[in-house]
Amino acid sequence: MKKNEFDKVLLAHGGGGQLSDQFIHDHILPRFKNTTLTELTDAAKLNLDSKSLCFTTDSYVIKPLFFHGGNIGKLAVCGTINDLAVSGSKPVALSLALIIEEGFPFDSLEKILDSIAETASQNNVSIVTGDTKTVESGAADGIFINTAGIGVRLEGVELGFNKIAAGDVIIISGSIGDHGMTIMSQRQDIGFHSRIKSDCAALADLTCKLLTSTKGIKFMRDPTRGGLAATLNEIVRQTDLSILLNELDIPINPTVQAAADALGLDILNIANEGKFVAVVSPEIALECIRICKIHPLGIQASVIGKIVETKDVPVVEMTTKIGGRRIVQMPYGRDLPRIC
Amino acid sequence: MKKNEFDKVLLAHGGGGQLSDQFIHDHILPRFKNTTLTELTDAAKLNLDSKSLCFTTDSYVIKPLFFHGGNIGKLAVCGTINDLAVSGSKPVALSLALIIEEGFPFDSLEKILDSIAETASQNNVSIVTGDTKTVESGAADGIFINTAGIGVRLEGVELGFNKIAAGDVIIISGSIGDHGMTIMSQRQDIGFHSRIKSDCAALADLTCKLLTSTKGIKFMRDPTRGGLAATLNEIVRQTDLSILLNELDIPINPTVQAAADALGLDILNIANEGKFVAVVSPEIALECIRICKIHPLGIQASVIGKIVETKDVPVVEMTTKIGGRRIVQMPYGRDLPRIC
Repeated sequence: MKKNEFDKVLLAHGGGGQLSDQFIHDHILPRFKNTTLTELTDAAKLNLDSKSLCFTTDSYVIKPLFFHGGNIGKLAVCGTINDLAVSGSKPVALSLALIIEEGFPFDSLEKILDSIAETASQNNVSIVTGDTKTVESGAADGIFINTAGIGVRLEGVELGFNKIAAGDVIIISGSIGDHGMTIMSQRQDIGFHSRIKSDCAALADLTCKLLTSTKGIKFMRDPTRGGLAATLNEIVRQTDLSILLNELDIPINPTVQAAADALGLDILNIANEGKFVAVVSPEIALECIRICKIHPLGIQASVIGKIVETKDVPVVEMTTKIGGRRIVQMPYGRDLPRIC
Repeated sequence: MKKNEFDKVLLAHGGGGQLSDQFIHDHILPRFKNTTLTELTDAAKLNLDSKSLCFTTDSYVIKPLFFHGGNIGKLAVCGTINDLAVSGSKPVALSLALIIEEGFPFDSLEKILDSIAETASQNNVSIVTGDTKTVESGAADGIFINTAGIGVRLEGVELGFNKIAAGDVIIISGSIGDHGMTIMSQRQDIGFHSRIKSDCAALADLTCKLLTSTKGIKFMRDPTRGGLAATLNEIVRQTDLSILLNELDIPINPTVQAAADALGLDILNIANEGKFVAVVSPEIALECIRICKIHPLGIQASVIGKIVETKDVPVVEMTTKIGGRRIVQMPYGRDLPRIC
């Protein structure tokens, strides 16, 4: 890789002229090279295995940019892969759009780009198209990244809120709150962050295994912003069915719980970046857990609750550790910006 | 559409909780409703007509957000449609990702969203998936928008630098510099901006007509950042062929030229947002011009130059109005940030 002659990003790196060109040829193409991207056309040409696709987008504005367990680049690849994965597809191609503040250190940018390349390659997805914009110092906070993604839908897999029925079982693929609490701890400098680590990971390998080797998975979602509480409340809202959760069954890293307690946060509202919630037929629940547990990203998978019919307003209700019951509400959202 | 209870965007509107949810249900879904988007899954499910696609992305950071002839919303739809169009595809689906600064006025946001909805609908593309992030006041400049797009490739159409040959003819679909000079004039307040107007427009209808009714179009590109100069220099770089331009044949609005002269800018470097450059076989050039001229976006279409073999270093060379010759260089990029 050609060493950059600048140590900071200039406005001209996003101006569409010589310096933009040099940036793409020196820093983007060598990292992400594939025949589609290298053509440098206005749009990537893709030949896919199916006409039935998933398409998603996310912008990443996380602060801090580097955190224990990852950085904004790794997150931007994993997050978009996960949205494709939980929609029942095999991720194949990503776009990459950077908005960079003038003066952003080139060595940080290179670390982020390296992470993007490494994570994409580990997960067999290609970065096939992209864009770089620069804005004046003060007009953005370091770097914002958008990735959009295309996945090829797995044959015979139909996931959706409308498949969910009373009696279905809710599975979480592992411990909750790790990503959000790592970020919060780093921001607040409360001293936990050396002992906790973001779960930032790409789930497609595990979800594809589950979806192709079982029949009866109804719905999947990765509980990011808003955490498990937001995902479960969205299920209730869309299905008009209630959920009964069992707090004791929810895997939580004790240090993560301690950090949440120290900051007065409800761990159920905290973002995850390497976990999925699955709603499955009761008869395949154990098989799903078995498949998860032999995968590095599903070792702590657990059945945490079930879908139930209700005559009242449907809610998420949780049996607490001490045997009480409480309603788990949709988080309001005030505490949670820039977590991803 | 439900009237918003807030007059400014709050951080919580992007937090993934209740307010995010309310924002999506009150402001996004009513504007962009289509069955795919309304499912609110993590990724849109698309069933396309072909396995052969184009895929592109662009972030829009334009300043000012509202300009004569458009706003960042219209631009974000047109720009991405155009990238798909000049790649030889029919645009079908867009993603929409917003990064909004806390405190951004809701009425401006609604105008932008209305423009996005209107422009997408006029061009028969659906907004099928999206994302909203908020950042603290001062961490972004108002609003940044990313759109990624999917187009279905037109059958039998193969565009690429590698198709270009000596003798091919270069066409521009209309006057150059209108977008960039409108933005610059507004920024510098030089008094031209009431008389000039961005050319911001979606070109897919015209490009699809051209590509399906002729055989012999080799390459197309929309000369955005870096203007006509950047596009032509990129052709030279990728083909190792030279270009001869004829300045007198390049359509330029005289007020736009005056504005460029007033600011000391070379109009060839100025961004366009509703024009394409096409490289075509000489025998179909007149037919292409004829098709353009009966379309509202191609009335000023013109043959502006040709591709020539060279034994020296290949360059873009222009015969000037007064009969001289000059080399047209790749712009450096310093003057041109935040033009799109």
